[in-house]
Amino acid sequence: MKTAASPRNNLTEAYALVRSHTEKLAAPLSAEDCALQSMPDTSPVKWHLAHTTWFFETVILAKQPGFKPADPRFAYLFNSYYEALGPRHPRPRRGLLSRPNLDEIYAYRAQIDAAMLQACGDATLYEAILLGLNHEQQHQELILTDIKHAFFSNPLLPAYRREPAAPQAQQKLEWRRHDGGTVQIGHQGGDFAFDNETPHHPVLLQPFAIASRPVSNGEYQAFIADGGYRRPEFWLSDGWARVQEENWEAPLYWLKDGDGNESVFTLSGVQALDPHAPVEHVSFYEAAAYAAWTGARMPTEFEWEASQISHGAVWEWTRSSYDPYPGFKPFAGVAAEYNGKFMVGQMVLRGGSSATPPGHIRATYRNFFPPQARWQFSGIRLAKDL
Amino acid sequence: MKTAASPRNNLTEAYALVRSHTEKLAAPLSAEDCALQSMPDTSPVKWHLAHTTWFFETVILAKQPGFKPADPRFAYLFNSYYEALGPRHPRPRRGLLSRPNLDEIYAYRAQIDAAMLQACGDATLYEAILLGLNHEQQHQELILTDIKHAFFSNPLLPAYRREPAAPQAQQKLEWRRHDGGTVQIGHQGGDFAFDNETPHHPVLLQPFAIASRPVSNGEYQAFIADGGYRRPEFWLSDGWARVQEENWEAPLYWLKDGDGNESVFTLSGVQALDPHAPVEHVSFYEAAAYAAWTGARMPTEFEWEASQISHGAVWEWTRSSYDPYPGFKPFAGVAAEYNGKFMVGQMVLRGGSSATPPGHIRATYRNFFPPQARWQFSGIRLAKDL
Amino acid sequence: MKTAASPRNNLTEAYALVRSHTEKLAAPLSAEDCALQSMPDTSPVKWHLAHTTWFFETVILAKQPGFKPADPRFAYLFNSYYEALGPRHPRPRRGLLSRPNLDEIYAYRAQIDAAMLQACGDATLYEAILLGLNHEQQHQELILTDIKHAFFSNPLLPAYRREPAAPQAQQKLEWRRHDGGTVQIGHQGGDFAFDNETPHHPVLLQPFAIASRPVSNGEYQAFIADGGYRRPEFWLSDGWARVQEENWEAPLYWLKDGDGNESVFTLSGVQALDPHAPVEHVSFYEAAAYAAWTGARMPTEFEWEASQISHGAVWEWTRSSYDPYPGFKPFAGVAAEYNGKFMVGQMVLRGGSSATPPGHIRATYRNFFPPQARWQFSGIRLAKDL
Amino acid sequence: MKTAASPRNNLTEAYALVRSHTEKLAAPLSAEDCALQSMPDTSPVKWHLAHTTWFFETVILAKQPGFKPADPRFAYLFNSYYEALGPRHPRPRRGLLSRPNLDEIYAYRAQIDAAMLQACGDATLYEAILLGLNHEQQHQELILTDIKHAFFSNPLLPAYRREPAAPQAQQKLEWRRHDGGTVQIGHQGGDFAFDNETPHHPVLLQPFAIASRPVSNGEYQAFIADGGYRRPEFWLSDGWARVQEENWEAPLYWLKDGDGNESVFTLSGVQALDPHAPVEHVSFYEAAAYAAWTGARMPTEFEWEASQISHGAVWEWTRSSYDPYPGFKPFAGVAAEYNGKFMVGQMVLRGGSSATPPGHIRATYRNFFPPQARWQFSGIRLAKDL
Repeated sequence: MKTAASPRNNLTEAYALVRSHTEKLAAPLSAEDCALQSMPDTSPVKWHLAHTTWFFETVILAKQPGFKPADPRFAYLFNSYYEALGPRHPRPRRGLLSRPNLDEIYAYRAQIDAAMLQACGDATLYEAILLGLNHEQQHQELILTDIKHAFFSNPLLPAYRREPAAPQAQQKLEWRRHDGGTVQIGHQGGDFAFDNETPHHPVLLQPFAIASRPVSNGEYQAFIADGGYRRPEFWLSDGWARVQEENWEAPLYWLKDGDGNESVFTLSGVQALDPHAPVEHVSFYEAAAYAAWTGARMPTEFEWEASQISHGAVWEWTRSSYDPYPGFKPFAGVAAEYNGKFMVGQMVLRGGSSATPPGHIRATYRNFFPPQARWQFSGIRLAKDL
Repeated sequence: MKTAASPRNNLTEAYALVRSHTEKLAAPLSAEDCALQSMPDTSPVKWHLAHTTWFFETVILAKQPGFKPADPRFAYLFNSYYEALGPRHPRPRRGLLSRPNLDEIYAYRAQIDAAMLQACGDATLYEAILLGLNHEQQHQELILTDIKHAFFSNPLLPAYRREPAAPQAQQKLEWRRHDGGTVQIGHQGGDFAFDNETPHHPVLLQPFAIASRPVSNGEYQAFIADGGYRRPEFWLSDGWARVQEENWEAPLYWLKDGDGNESVFTLSGVQALDPHAPVEHVSFYEAAAYAAWTGARMPTEFEWEASQISHGAVWEWTRSSYDPYPGFKPFAGVAAEYNGKFMVGQMVLRGGSSATPPGHIRATYRNFFPPQARWQFSGIRLAKDL
Repeated sequence: MKTAASPRNNLTEAYALVRSHTEKLAAPLSAEDCALQSMPDTSPVKWHLAHTTWFFETVILAKQPGFKPADPRFAYLFNSYYEALGPRHPRPRRGLLSRPNLDEIYAYRAQIDAAMLQACGDATLYEAILLGLNHEQQHQELILTDIKHAFFSNPLLPAYRREPAAPQAQQKLEWRRHDGGTVQIGHQGGDFAFDNETPHHPVLLQPFAIASRPVSNGEYQAFIADGGYRRPEFWLSDGWARVQEENWEAPLYWLKDGDGNESVFTLSGVQALDPHAPVEHVSFYEAAAYAAWTGARMPTEFEWEASQISHGAVWEWTRSSYDPYPGFKPFAGVAAEYNGKFMVGQMVLRGGSSATPPGHIRATYRNFFPPQARWQFSGIRLAKDL
Repeated sequence: MKTAASPRNNLTEAYALVRSHTEKLAAPLSAEDCALQSMPDTSPVKWHLAHTTWFFETVILAKQPGFKPADPRFAYLFNSYYEALGPRHPRPRRGLLSRPNLDEIYAYRAQIDAAMLQACGDATLYEAILLGLNHEQQHQELILTDIKHAFFSNPLLPAYRREPAAPQAQQKLEWRRHDGGTVQIGHQGGDFAFDNETPHHPVLLQPFAIASRPVSNGEYQAFIADGGYRRPEFWLSDGWARVQEENWEAPLYWLKDGDGNESVFTLSGVQALDPHAPVEHVSFYEAAAYAAWTGARMPTEFEWEASQISHGAVWEWTRSSYDPYPGFKPFAGVAAEYNGKFMVGQMVLRGGSSATPPGHIRATYRNFFPPQARWQFSGIRLAKDL
């Protein structure tokens, strides 16, 4: 599939591809499904469809001469968190918007798409449109994480699709050594990157080793079997408090049948747990506890980026807080609020997952979530000192 | 319209009328609308459609020989609060059930209706079916109160229908005197009543007077204008705490336009406030504060019932806590949980409202809600000692 | 002991007796003990010592010519809930007042006492001073209930005193029959009563029987042994929710030793549970569940008052919500807030307890607490229909 | 004053000095004062006195042959957060421990001191005792921060002492340039350091400049006057949410008199705000917003440590999350829980404050608190890129 990562030759085509991919993701869902919001951190699919459209309307079209908003009330409904753009509908109440209905949202998409296809021919808008496409790709992943969480909230445990993953072959875990020294970190420019990936800058590393693949379900089962969720010595203090408060006993979507066998809720419904697949839907706290149990640790985001390891199966928590790079400058204009204002209280994840859209994964990409988050496709990569 | 109150001659017809009336109430709503739950106290319209059906299935059909449940999972999803019938889906999460979808709920209704139309011919089931019909009528009112609350949660303030109430003529408030003495309270039997209306029993009253009509919007505006929401001397202690916590300044659905003029959100959208219509959507706390401001009080439920006043425009808070009548016995069987277990912490309302279905109003009817509830069509009747 | 109930002959003596009794109750406690506040519903002993003094200062002395407040800041610190007297220190933060220290509080008491002993000679102040004395007696009971709760919050389970109750003899439970009919309820005047006990008025009762004594610990143990705390069929809906949320398994202060034997925390420390003593520290919810388990019920407050049963060992929950009597008028002036504004959401208790001060018990007395309250000396009296 | 930092020659003397300094800090306080806990993050002074003693008893004495605990119940009461040492009294309830009383706590201190003075002669215990002394010094600062917060919770605003700070002279803010490059970070060994300061390791810096002194009250007033607390563009997202939720308008202890003049609550009571003194009691969020308003930023903890700037007047928030140094190893044994398990969700502060005890400040010291914390003596140092 043609991706959004290098679309300069044909921005119009890239725009159409990204936008239609979003709608393909929503296609298996009914209007009722698209309206679900199962917790404040998630959003209805319908809201994602509208918000990504509002982003193009606001960042690109609203600056064109003669602009008229598709509906002046949408700025209030579909602004996510941009303080500079005024007040907005409270996030935890996005699931209460039965109106505009799903058909009206699709009509809104079509109306903005028509205007945007013209805008794609304007070279001065290239950077802004590229940001909009990458923004929409981020919401493509959220559509999947959010509907998975919503369907898990239904005792019927409905399936989003019927394509269970094929069983994976066992892979030996090997340690890849790195001698440390000064490495270059961050995006070098040339094609699209988010502001938080810049500037490109040197970082000094100590020698270390990193695992050749993420931790598997089978390996994580051994941690559980060894009392991992009942032994505070492996846990960060905040993590142990969370284990107690929320009675964590396993990753988010793991289930037990009547015989105590483990299965797992997936986008294809309940499936047998594949011992060789990467463990998914663990928090940073669980990742840190697992690493402590093994006697190893997680890599820093700098070690991760310097390692050139195979990735993309699951987002990998790193042992790095989401702090700004030296010399960090936010995007100009409205997009200044895109990343920088979230740089506290979150941990960096690297890699990409089975839910990440094609072309959206790159080695310098900095994903970030609070340490307790579990509804993302997040797993564990080990590292150790040498 | 033929009502459910005396359907012995033709229970089948009564059944069909009540059931179809529920569906008529839901007809203006999309599947998305029907899934909304705007607070834990309310339920999605879809859930009301299913729960009332589950009630017939469980109370009537499940006792018939050869019964098979329409879907064995529905008992978990659509049981409201019957502990004796096992665990159930948590009430605050009813809005997360996009599946079964609305069409499936209607199919469920049709399937149960087919079986019930047979059951209606069985005279031994008459009492139980009558309970089911009165139960469904209660949910007909809740469909309206709950969708009104849900639509008010949407900044677009959508209308459920387009039939604004006609302006009302001013009515003089007159005081109807009652000499007190022993009066008979409660339902005498003969036709349907809930268990909480029984037994019929004598109560001794002191002389009193009761207002000829409920308090109007215009009268309530005078209370607000006189600082009613800022003067603790009129308020019960818990009520004053609630005013502070939730910043109450007016009844639930009152709005101010840019010029400070009052309008009100209704099932027909935002309308001008009719000064002569009864004030609606006030809590017991507000009713008590208003009464204190006038120097009068609310009637007890016994005074109310003894007064033979015109009613039915708005539910009227009484100054009576919802306690059992002397000799009260709950319904037998599953329905034992219908009313009795709620007899603490609630206040009695009498009368009926514009949202109460035809034939469901009677003088002995005891409605009840917690003193802070405002999303019901609840208003104020004044009384005073003589 | 001379009591406050009929002190007209010698108000000065009554004043001195009540005031010194309060200080005797505080005498076993250190300054540190007197500062404890273990939950928002309770107050530090020190605060009770000051608040009762502030009441005399505010209600009596502040109206005298030439009055100067002992300390102008005390009105803010020691006003409990009188909105008419201005803002006040938040109730949940009373335990943070290390200053004024306990010695300063006692000095405040002495200063007000000196002025009050003069005021006691002024016959026009008789009613107001009597109210102040009865008010102080209410706080005498609260001193005991609140320090008991505070000491129970300390894992060392300290004792307030060393006078464990003597074992009680078993008493047969007998049913006292009452034919019903019109009875006179409420205080007739003549000596002191709170406003909520008035007016004296007729109430019509149905025939009933009432138990000759409160439910004993041993009887309540049988309820527990029969699964009482695990069987929802006995519980009011709100009560059952509370059982789940707070994991209730027994009355508030019951303990189990390593062998599963039951003991109980008392003001004299941990003691063996006396099977023949009245069960104490149960909520209204537990009382109602116990009554339902026996097939009986609780009496209404009117049945209770009409029965002339022996009482005073434990406060007895009634099946009556705390509503105003017909024709109820609050005290005049500041004391208008004394009782009336709490007449919603609470249940009436009758009788009196081992913590009630001498002379403060009378048959018309209406105590009231929310249905979930357990830290008062509250027990269960059974009744049944005839 | 002789300090704990290099006491090898005379550990006994160091022990006595540190222990007596703690008691000097508590000396101005009554037993009632010493029992105050004004929020879950703080502890009563009495608890600090006991916990530091328990630490010596547990870490040193409990390992000696023939050890008997002073009171076996103290392990439950005075363990702070050591999971390996068993369950403990819940932190938010430390203020409910009127027993053991303050005299008993001092007796406990004396008993442990007697045993410890012997232990000080045992060279094998040197490292562990030094840890205990540094631990106690940390609690010396907490005694001051916690009593300040507790006294601020009392509307009388009592003073801990009567030694208001002398007015400070205005100091020009100058920028100290640093060329960047590889610098050595962390403690080199030789004398005491916490595990989180190690290992000593190289870090690569970009060129930067750092301010010669912390931000002053006067400078911070200009931020407020410019709408700093009302303009979201300066704030991190979580910080802005906190401003809204808690209505922040100024640093924690700032007050306004009737004329709107600013004063500040200090350990010496309410004092005029000194415009040239460092601003204190700001959160990381406020520090970041202030820095953004100036167009500068905060230094990283590495820039700070490399800068050799004058410090010690106020703890200085850095732009570094509290992550482990490369190769970090926790202390052995029980002390493994001392620092490492808190390495998530917190920000590093550097420097030391007016409340830090003598000898406890060093350039490699890593203090840490959550970004919303304001009750510490925390201020702002600016830095900028070159």
